[in-house]
Amino acid sequence: MEGEKQEAIEKEVAKVPDVSLKELSRKLEEFALERDWMQFHSPRNLLLAVVGEVGELAEIFMWRGEVAKGLPNWEESDKEHLGEELSDVLLYLIRLSDICGVDLGEAALKKIVKNAIKYPAKAT
Amino acid sequence: MEGEKQEAIEKEVAKVPDVSLKELSRKLEEFALERDWMQFHSPRNLLLAVVGEVGELAEIFMWRGEVAKGLPNWEESDKEHLGEELSDVLLYLIRLSDICGVDLGEAALKKIVKNAIKYPAKAT
Amino acid sequence: MEGEKQEAIEKEVAKVPDVSLKELSRKLEEFALERDWMQFHSPRNLLLAVVGEVGELAEIFMWRGEVAKGLPNWEESDKEHLGEELSDVLLYLIRLSDICGVDLGEAALKKIVKNAIKYPAKAT
Amino acid sequence: MEGEKQEAIEKEVAKVPDVSLKELSRKLEEFALERDWMQFHSPRNLLLAVVGEVGELAEIFMWRGEVAKGLPNWEESDKEHLGEELSDVLLYLIRLSDICGVDLGEAALKKIVKNAIKYPAKAT
Repeated sequence: MEGEKQEAIEKEVAKVPDVSLKELSRKLEEFALERDWMQFHSPRNLLLAVVGEVGELAEIFMWRGEVAKGLPNWEESDKEHLGEELSDVLLYLIRLSDICGVDLGEAALKKIVKNAIKYPAKAT
Repeated sequence: MEGEKQEAIEKEVAKVPDVSLKELSRKLEEFALERDWMQFHSPRNLLLAVVGEVGELAEIFMWRGEVAKGLPNWEESDKEHLGEELSDVLLYLIRLSDICGVDLGEAALKKIVKNAIKYPAKAT
Repeated sequence: MEGEKQEAIEKEVAKVPDVSLKELSRKLEEFALERDWMQFHSPRNLLLAVVGEVGELAEIFMWRGEVAKGLPNWEESDKEHLGEELSDVLLYLIRLSDICGVDLGEAALKKIVKNAIKYPAKAT
Repeated sequence: MEGEKQEAIEKEVAKVPDVSLKELSRKLEEFALERDWMQFHSPRNLLLAVVGEVGELAEIFMWRGEVAKGLPNWEESDKEHLGEELSDVLLYLIRLSDICGVDLGEAALKKIVKNAIKYPAKAT
């Protein structure tokens, strides 16, 4: 049963090799609608959900001292856990953006261009 | 000059109507490489950057009391500011995922499927 | 047994009606020494512990919408839980200050005076 | 003028060698009343203020890599800044506790006793 669930997850994910923010956004809205959760998705509720998930993310890194890139000595289960907490932050961040009427993908692209103007690349 | 910059930003963004996480990821890596910033991008540095940006996001909502969906009474400049802070959280979150070797898009899709199993939709 | 533990806690607390930051600081240092935990108490580890506890604090307020002063409709057990999470933030904040060599009480008093100069009280 | 202000701050602080949570609490309530700020001090507003200040605290430690105890190589001005951000977190945490009707000092003492039962000290 657990194996079947895992397989179902892998199949679903394999279909979408490079997901866009708008696809995630649509999935999350559908998810909330199907569960009658829109009533809980106010801006400050979702903001506190982001804060809560960032807290859980911090707890993964809390007692480890400095951590090397690529997490060379981490257990596979810890990496899995990390992927879930990173996702939770992302998913609530997308919901928060949507509920506030902000196009997060567009805003992010603008921010990168703005940063490129603010911090010019070194001449080579 | 400011107008020209703004125009350049709009043009760049107009090209990509629905950005994917991997595109953002590529842009951010290129950005860091061009500025010799990879040396600062360790997992815990980037995690603290996420925390810092979430703090700035919180400051936008801090003294406002409850906020309605769509931010009906907000100044355009406040919405712009909000888009930038949401983006900053997203961009550091993507960098953190990449530096840790986590495919954030795949992890997010898996998490949604996992959540759908955990919280079944109401029968209709 | 649970009752005895609770009683022991109440007795211990009743002795100190108005605890100072330095008293908490001493208790926490002793606590860490007795458990050989000093090795984990580096500045950034403790900072991430603060972030983790703030996340847990946020989770208490997350889905509630606006909350009235004094928490009039909260269950006693929720208030108890809140007291514990507020304490966890405080205790790690004190440890972080101590490990960084900052006298938190002195710094806080200075900050209040500085704020009073920055934001003069209204004339009455 | 700046010198006079600094002197005034030092004098005020020198009077209270070991400040209690209740003293800070009283000062903060008085401060809010004198400025007509009680209207802004709702539980979730203050919680977001705590989150904002923790973000500023994180930004101090963000790009530094691991930091040694006692901050041996930090500039005096950075330490000063750190003391202010630690204080800001503390002061909003105390306000949040007060507005929620939680006695933070008592809760913290209880939590330490509870932790001592949960994590028994090593026999020596």
